[in-house]
Amino acid sequence: MSRKRANDAYTPRPEHHFTFGLWTVGNPGRDPFGEPVRAPIAPTRIVEKLAELGAYGVNLHDNDLVPRDASTAERDRIVRAFKAALKASGMKVPMATTNLFSDPVFRDGAFTSNDARVRRFALQKTMAAMDLGVELGAETYVFWGGREGVETNAAKDLRAALGWFRDSLNFLCDYARSQHYSLKFALEAKPNEPRGDIFLPTTGHMLAFIYTLDHPEMVGLNPEVAHEQMAGLDFSHGVAQALEAGKLFHIDLNGQKPGRFDQDLRFGSDDPRAAFFLVKLLEDAEWPGMRHFDSHAYRTEDEAGVWDFALGSMRTYLILKHKAEQFRRDPEIQQLLEALRKRADAAPVAFTKERARALKAERFDLPALRAQGYAYERLDQLTTELLLGVR
Amino acid sequence: MSRKRANDAYTPRPEHHFTFGLWTVGNPGRDPFGEPVRAPIAPTRIVEKLAELGAYGVNLHDNDLVPRDASTAERDRIVRAFKAALKASGMKVPMATTNLFSDPVFRDGAFTSNDARVRRFALQKTMAAMDLGVELGAETYVFWGGREGVETNAAKDLRAALGWFRDSLNFLCDYARSQHYSLKFALEAKPNEPRGDIFLPTTGHMLAFIYTLDHPEMVGLNPEVAHEQMAGLDFSHGVAQALEAGKLFHIDLNGQKPGRFDQDLRFGSDDPRAAFFLVKLLEDAEWPGMRHFDSHAYRTEDEAGVWDFALGSMRTYLILKHKAEQFRRDPEIQQLLEALRKRADAAPVAFTKERARALKAERFDLPALRAQGYAYERLDQLTTELLLGVR
Amino acid sequence: MSRKRANDAYTPRPEHHFTFGLWTVGNPGRDPFGEPVRAPIAPTRIVEKLAELGAYGVNLHDNDLVPRDASTAERDRIVRAFKAALKASGMKVPMATTNLFSDPVFRDGAFTSNDARVRRFALQKTMAAMDLGVELGAETYVFWGGREGVETNAAKDLRAALGWFRDSLNFLCDYARSQHYSLKFALEAKPNEPRGDIFLPTTGHMLAFIYTLDHPEMVGLNPEVAHEQMAGLDFSHGVAQALEAGKLFHIDLNGQKPGRFDQDLRFGSDDPRAAFFLVKLLEDAEWPGMRHFDSHAYRTEDEAGVWDFALGSMRTYLILKHKAEQFRRDPEIQQLLEALRKRADAAPVAFTKERARALKAERFDLPALRAQGYAYERLDQLTTELLLGVR
Amino acid sequence: MSRKRANDAYTPRPEHHFTFGLWTVGNPGRDPFGEPVRAPIAPTRIVEKLAELGAYGVNLHDNDLVPRDASTAERDRIVRAFKAALKASGMKVPMATTNLFSDPVFRDGAFTSNDARVRRFALQKTMAAMDLGVELGAETYVFWGGREGVETNAAKDLRAALGWFRDSLNFLCDYARSQHYSLKFALEAKPNEPRGDIFLPTTGHMLAFIYTLDHPEMVGLNPEVAHEQMAGLDFSHGVAQALEAGKLFHIDLNGQKPGRFDQDLRFGSDDPRAAFFLVKLLEDAEWPGMRHFDSHAYRTEDEAGVWDFALGSMRTYLILKHKAEQFRRDPEIQQLLEALRKRADAAPVAFTKERARALKAERFDLPALRAQGYAYERLDQLTTELLLGVR
Repeated sequence: MSRKRANDAYTPRPEHHFTFGLWTVGNPGRDPFGEPVRAPIAPTRIVEKLAELGAYGVNLHDNDLVPRDASTAERDRIVRAFKAALKASGMKVPMATTNLFSDPVFRDGAFTSNDARVRRFALQKTMAAMDLGVELGAETYVFWGGREGVETNAAKDLRAALGWFRDSLNFLCDYARSQHYSLKFALEAKPNEPRGDIFLPTTGHMLAFIYTLDHPEMVGLNPEVAHEQMAGLDFSHGVAQALEAGKLFHIDLNGQKPGRFDQDLRFGSDDPRAAFFLVKLLEDAEWPGMRHFDSHAYRTEDEAGVWDFALGSMRTYLILKHKAEQFRRDPEIQQLLEALRKRADAAPVAFTKERARALKAERFDLPALRAQGYAYERLDQLTTELLLGVR
Repeated sequence: MSRKRANDAYTPRPEHHFTFGLWTVGNPGRDPFGEPVRAPIAPTRIVEKLAELGAYGVNLHDNDLVPRDASTAERDRIVRAFKAALKASGMKVPMATTNLFSDPVFRDGAFTSNDARVRRFALQKTMAAMDLGVELGAETYVFWGGREGVETNAAKDLRAALGWFRDSLNFLCDYARSQHYSLKFALEAKPNEPRGDIFLPTTGHMLAFIYTLDHPEMVGLNPEVAHEQMAGLDFSHGVAQALEAGKLFHIDLNGQKPGRFDQDLRFGSDDPRAAFFLVKLLEDAEWPGMRHFDSHAYRTEDEAGVWDFALGSMRTYLILKHKAEQFRRDPEIQQLLEALRKRADAAPVAFTKERARALKAERFDLPALRAQGYAYERLDQLTTELLLGVR
Repeated sequence: MSRKRANDAYTPRPEHHFTFGLWTVGNPGRDPFGEPVRAPIAPTRIVEKLAELGAYGVNLHDNDLVPRDASTAERDRIVRAFKAALKASGMKVPMATTNLFSDPVFRDGAFTSNDARVRRFALQKTMAAMDLGVELGAETYVFWGGREGVETNAAKDLRAALGWFRDSLNFLCDYARSQHYSLKFALEAKPNEPRGDIFLPTTGHMLAFIYTLDHPEMVGLNPEVAHEQMAGLDFSHGVAQALEAGKLFHIDLNGQKPGRFDQDLRFGSDDPRAAFFLVKLLEDAEWPGMRHFDSHAYRTEDEAGVWDFALGSMRTYLILKHKAEQFRRDPEIQQLLEALRKRADAAPVAFTKERARALKAERFDLPALRAQGYAYERLDQLTTELLLGVR
Repeated sequence: MSRKRANDAYTPRPEHHFTFGLWTVGNPGRDPFGEPVRAPIAPTRIVEKLAELGAYGVNLHDNDLVPRDASTAERDRIVRAFKAALKASGMKVPMATTNLFSDPVFRDGAFTSNDARVRRFALQKTMAAMDLGVELGAETYVFWGGREGVETNAAKDLRAALGWFRDSLNFLCDYARSQHYSLKFALEAKPNEPRGDIFLPTTGHMLAFIYTLDHPEMVGLNPEVAHEQMAGLDFSHGVAQALEAGKLFHIDLNGQKPGRFDQDLRFGSDDPRAAFFLVKLLEDAEWPGMRHFDSHAYRTEDEAGVWDFALGSMRTYLILKHKAEQFRRDPEIQQLLEALRKRADAAPVAFTKERARALKAERFDLPALRAQGYAYERLDQLTTELLLGVR
């Protein structure tokens, strides 16, 4: 099961801040049409193995670590052993979250179930999971509402459901505050699957929702590549909006072809170009967050393939990061960008009556503006050649 | 060209507040692969004809009425004749907007063009178009940034572009205020086409953006069926979010199959079920806005077909509105909904420490909650039969 | 669990030839993010219950009835009990198929696995399943190659894989012939899920493939609504091509929104209009095959909801069938169609040199042909109103 | 307008057999929302300029060269000048086709219009265009039926329409034969746009249709990247099927994001990985056809950008071709593939009764087959690193 690993410029190290979910490398390869193909891997072994590969930390749902029906004693024993493994390996748990989707009790959703008892149970489960996350040192708490949705709009009052969702998040923000937890909440959107349609289906809808909460300052986004690309949207655009709004609190890196089931492919393996523009955006912004991979190995793989997958995810990020640096130094590319920057050099645009009057009277050389090209084909071709490694 | 029209319960009348864009019934049937198939119809004739069919008003882009290069005298003559036609027919102009996409000057966008002169020209053009809209009585001003986007992310600083867009909207809000215009702004999102990717691609992204403006209270949304469905999203969900946030300022009704080019089909003609849930949502909410159709007749049609299209759009809305009323009165449907409402009847959820403590200790009958069904198949089948007119 | 059922014009009866897969009503509600929510229902109970609801028969995979590791004695006992249930209820088994996707052995495909032993095992399993199907009276044998595909094109020689698939089908055709089985093979395409991309992804690709087999006359198609709509294609068009080519051997009725995971919704519940055109096509063609439902109840449902789902599937088909008859009798619709038929009335088009010469010299009144409309908006609006039950 | 061009291993030369449509580099940048942004470029100039860039030839629709209403004298003069330009530059015209979509006469289709006169006119126009193509030396004749479709299935008898399409193709095959033209026909599928749904929407549906023609041996496919990817299908799979069936007669190279309008992007610019697997497939198969680009420059470009676009298209193909060679020589990649080939080494599978009997009795080591991994993650990661140029 051990394979020769390259030790080169793209070898991951803890300072790169790569993290994986326990559920990602631990994914047993079950899918809607087939049984598991891999044995479960113990969380402690995952920690050791990822440390060996150069990761910084692991993230988890409550039930990734502690089984649903564990007694308090079992829970404590499991947590103790897990902390020991973390300590031994130097790995961290920067993020935690709640599993609000596997248990049949959540078949109609958790915070938006039509059954108020289910909604309360979801709050209870989340508070316990937050306690666990904090105990493990997590600073970010993710909410993915995979079952908050409908198959038919006849079944749910859409506006009431949004209200229930908001009430729950407000409650949990207050809970975190009352406990003096230094947690930030990161909300994760997805358009569909497993529900027919999931509420707040994109990074945009979710970000808009945050502004309506009681404590918007402690709530941001956890955008996921696959979830935005399922809707055919450019992921970088959503991330740029989150960054610009100061709301990029976490990120889920993986791969996905548009318009199909949730694939959770190895980062960069579906569309290296989109992955490049994403890495470039994060690195240009010097974004300080974790580079978290929410993906899993193909179902064709045995355990050795799982570690190939994990290593490959990190290597591809580093390769693309290197290319982003190269882009910033490429003279032909920078010459084209400089020409664009010159055109962009604008007078201030804050409104005054005088400025409005002047602007109304301004004469533009429209024939020239209509005729000018922007040289984006050339710029894009140079980028393509850089990406393909022939510059 | 005149066809016998039914006079029945679904015959549109002005009080139904149906409006059409001049560009919709006036669409000459040009597409990327073919020449126009219909002669232009004069705006004054459109007004007369739509009034005859029972519409309430027409909406317009500046250049739908006034050609791009018209002199001031020509402009005034055209506007005078148009106002006369409005007066004669009793038709209104509730909404106006700017054409920031046809002129080659906008090839790289208007408010987000990399060229600062283009951005200024877009402001100038919009101020003039706002003046025109107000002169015609418009109370809602729509912004659709069809060219605000990119084909390649190499070409534009995404965060800078969002900043430029915000600056422009802030400027124009201030302009409206300085002029004492009682205009509300309604922003319209679209994921792609004509650009490869358009910024703020969905109703959700656009709504989030509004919260970052200087005057968010005067800015809301103009969601369009087709634009949200292009991304495969459930349109009703986006509209419900906008309604719940008090941000549904206008709406564009039409039809669209997911995952393809912008079709602008007759409302209700692609997916009558999705159209039904939308109408039900608007009518249940007693939403007071205009029912605006942003769509056009198939390119197979001559002018008679255009009026068939316009009439059909309104009739289908009224048929679905009638079904929404029927849904509210259907005893079997209401019995199922009543059973759901009982489960939803919840204790208050505002956070207190005591409530959190109690909730942590609450015991749930999980086996029962796991086993219970929600009868959504039955509810959906009854809805289907109601929609198909056999209940 | 028993609900009052309507007894009306849309009540299913055996002569309507409705069938269900054991795996459809038997679906326990497991999905990629959640555990089963319903207990398994014994095949014998499924038979009884479906008979009671008016179905004609049930279809099955080998392992729907006989567990994977059953001994010969167990197998025989199970089959005996099942046949007794069929006899008691008068239900038939018109179609059978092989499960070549659940067992981890098929993780890289069955007939196209890169491992030749797996390909041989798939042949062995299929021969045994064909024997079982014939024993139960099946006349159609379906092949759905859910795992015949790849996640990365680096992994498989695409042309070799098609060759392996062909070899297997040729082998199995010969096997059926050598056994004197009066089976017809019906191939079922799907674009993706569970594999990243599945070979022969649409009804069209699969039909083309059939022409390259050794015994094309015994092989046709089993198109599935959901599978074609996943790719955003108009399902009726694929079915019309199959019908026209004499290759519609079976059909899988269900519902699906384009561009998302495989939903297997209740027939007609997602897009009643597309369902209407499909039913109209099948009924206009007087197609004699089974109306098979390959779908399952929402995961929100308990067992009562499963039977609601089954009954609703059949009722919707019958409602739409009734509407197809109404379409054929509607005077306004027929008047429009008659006008089109007149334009279509053409001279014979078989090639002769004289006809080609004459055609080259023919003068067309192009201005008139360019100007004429086709009245499709009106035709479509009348169809919409008929579908909504207000004509 | 002249830019410094690299002269390196990726510089195109005529022996690479790159061709462009006159309509591609000649595209003036009109789209559904905007006016043309570039002046027309004379066909003779296109020929010279492409020759200068290293192309092999140009392809054309009849009306790309000869305007719709040209007199015979004009036509002859234009053709003469064009032939002179070809001769001067050494450029060829390997493929020709008919414009059956721009003229409003084709608003309801050409060979499948409901109007029989339109269908006859389409035949007449195609015969003349074939004559022109042959005169220019074309050996492949492409049929793209962009308007052969519907917006509503109420409007057309789907099976009749397929019959009309077949009649037309049979007629034109016979015409070519009667003229002793050595033309091969290459049919091109597209799922939608400009029609709501286009008949025979994918490479697969079109290939199936070919088998029903009178002269299938002279008819093959012209698959287009963008058209197959619009439906979210893996283009390489369709091309592999065409190759395997001996039906890849021509190819249209470009780029496209799934699930949106027809973008016709520069080859390799949207998804370099998919482009790589396509080039690898064509080169591994030593496919002898033309590498034709059916795409156009972004609308942001002036004429200089058009030539950047043309050159970039060819360069990217050559870069990827080089990588395909590298893949064949990479020791680690080849070691993984060799391991797979060993598993694939199979006994013959042609059916005999003895072989079937033996196969039924064969014992498989299922636990081992279930447990084994395929190392596809590693293989794919190596491929990714090769593609990114870091191997």
